Amino acid sequence: MADDQNMHLVIIRHGESEWNKLNLFTGWTDVDLTDTGRAEAAAGGKALKEQGFDFDVCYTSLLKRAIHTLNIVLDEMDRAWLPVHKTWRLNERHYGALQGLNKAKAAEEHGDVPQEDLPYTECLKDTIARAWPYFEQEIKPQLESGKRVLIAAHGNSLRALVMQLEHLTPEEILKVNIPTGVPCSYTFDKDWNILDKHYIGDPATIEAKINAVANQGKAKK
Amino acid sequence: MADDQNMHLVIIRHGESEWNKLNLFTGWTDVDLTDTGRAEAAAGGKALKEQGFDFDVCYTSLLKRAIHTLNIVLDEMDRAWLPVHKTWRLNERHYGALQGLNKAKAAEEHGDVPQEDLPYTECLKDTIARAWPYFEQEIKPQLESGKRVLIAAHGNSLRALVMQLEHLTPEEILKVNIPTGVPCSYTFDKDWNILDKHYIGDPATIEAKINAVANQGKAKK
Repeated sequence: MADDQNMHLVIIRHGESEWNKLNLFTGWTDVDLTDTGRAEAAAGGKALKEQGFDFDVCYTSLLKRAIHTLNIVLDEMDRAWLPVHKTWRLNERHYGALQGLNKAKAAEEHGDVPQEDLPYTECLKDTIARAWPYFEQEIKPQLESGKRVLIAAHGNSLRALVMQLEHLTPEEILKVNIPTGVPCSYTFDKDWNILDKHYIGDPATIEAKINAVANQGKAKK
Repeated sequence: MADDQNMHLVIIRHGESEWNKLNLFTGWTDVDLTDTGRAEAAAGGKALKEQGFDFDVCYTSLLKRAIHTLNIVLDEMDRAWLPVHKTWRLNERHYGALQGLNKAKAAEEHGDVPQEDLPYTECLKDTIARAWPYFEQEIKPQLESGKRVLIAAHGNSLRALVMQLEHLTPEEILKVNIPTGVPCSYTFDKDWNILDKHYIGDPATIEAKINAVANQGKAKK
């Protein structure tokens, strides 16, 4: 439990997956982490432990790249025994017809992503509409009762939460690129004002990772 | 969900742990699986998948050797997303003053185990007293509603369940040696009569494993 009156949340985006490596739209396709992805998750867990973080309850999606990221983080922290809730509401945005397509190729053919109008493609608004109510109903009460929460999820399901928590506009959230496997710590006061937000790890590595993510959806020149 | 009116439960004892290998009383000491233990768990998961088993909900202890066994089994079955409930009530019997002692040495000094009278040592009856109510309150309702349940736990916490499920006497249950990493399938009718019980895997390997477990607590001649 938190030893102050503030609320403590850490989010972590899964490490590199097999399809991230190939620069494909993954969405709900249940691909696993690569060795690099596992190493990223382990580094995230080590950094959390070294900086004295601890948790009371964890949340993740139903997709193995997020579940495995969480398991690896918890193993590094010697916290495999923590309760873990898995929910489809934290799954990655469903890319519908784009799933399995190469991101750069899709950008060449259809213009830079996101392509909100392709058939069966969930837009970020839809992702928010399923992820945020889960946060409000299930996760908020835990934080408000003093529990320290860890969420391991995906680029866009985390964006959905970050947009709401940071009161960003749809345009602003698209510019937020969450690096893979780097824990991001939020401290809120009891009225949900952000007292602190920072990534946990080496700043130069984090900066490079953010730029790498931002460039994935750009057409190759 | 079960596709018949019967109830389906599988139990699995964790694979070899670092202290099993050294023949020490482990109890609540949170040691990890060895490579052999991980391979046992993977073989158990593969056998379950090959024989068409599937599950709706899983239970395990708070000890990493059981949690990791479950995670490995679920990975082999491509079911990492299943809900998992972790509880101390399925932890191994607490060996108190015996924890960390060599089993054969303890048997030489104190006579063959179990040593119910050593200080702070939980007896099997105590283990039953904490494990069985959890089964009755949490797991039974799931089975009765048609959910297929997998439990990954420990030699004695599983004995506690087996004793009750099979209506064994305290003397009879001590002769039951559950092999490590071998799934055991139970089918019950709606009145909890056992319609079928069988281990899943190669019979000769299972027999050898049962004998190996039975011999651990014997003094070396």
